[in-house]
Amino acid sequence: MSAVEEANEAFYRAFSAMDLDAMTGLWSRSERDVCIHPGWKILRGWDEIEHSWRQIFTGADALQFFVTDVSVRSSPELAIVTCIENMVSIARGQRVGSRIAATNAFARTGDGWKLVLHQGSAIAGQTEVADLEVGGEVH
Amino acid sequence: MSAVEEANEAFYRAFSAMDLDAMTGLWSRSERDVCIHPGWKILRGWDEIEHSWRQIFTGADALQFFVTDVSVRSSPELAIVTCIENMVSIARGQRVGSRIAATNAFARTGDGWKLVLHQGSAIAGQTEVADLEVGGEVH
Repeated sequence: MSAVEEANEAFYRAFSAMDLDAMTGLWSRSERDVCIHPGWKILRGWDEIEHSWRQIFTGADALQFFVTDVSVRSSPELAIVTCIENMVSIARGQRVGSRIAATNAFARTGDGWKLVLHQGSAIAGQTEVADLEVGGEVH
Repeated sequence: MSAVEEANEAFYRAFSAMDLDAMTGLWSRSERDVCIHPGWKILRGWDEIEHSWRQIFTGADALQFFVTDVSVRSSPELAIVTCIENMVSIARGQRVGSRIAATNAFARTGDGWKLVLHQGSAIAGQTEVADLEVGGEVH
């Protein structure tokens, strides 16, 4: 697995663990970072983005991801990963499944590949994955 | 304006002109190209992507864009543009406005910067822009 794929996997580990410290360590944390959650406006700069992760992690009791269809386009300084997030979220006793198409971009830094952009968009008609196996390959 | 910004503007000119030939010339047209229209699954490779533009251009009578909040992250080989597409589409006499958050990635080629990724996601609660000025800066 390439270093970029490892950074992408670490992103979904931090996301599913709802671990703000781990999430923070994965981003470049600059003014130029960009994050577009499904249905949200564009968030620019680490301050706004950190706030959004706080909101998301506070709003859910549990998040699980099964990431599929991963593809990487790499260059010396920037790399772009696209994938499908098969997600199950549990909040207030409700279990909701969704399929989200995602782009994650990473910049090479002295401290490895760091997230500079995340965009997720819900795939229409794919909000029911109640039969998705929880456990197994889901992490 | 940088060459990347020019390529991004050319993308929205081709999109609003519903000009498949112009759109085709803007993409790298490789197996690795990625396109995620709002609500759609991930399209991979130029064949699928070209087909989607054909569908979109056939389904609308007119498309107008007013692109705002443009930001560029560039590197020698790959560049990423994020922006808001304030869009008005007219189809079967219905005029629908929407605000879409978009990521466009370009790769440097011997023939200039070419699109390798487009992702658009609708911003929730922003589907009514009927009061958007048509004409003026809209192109």
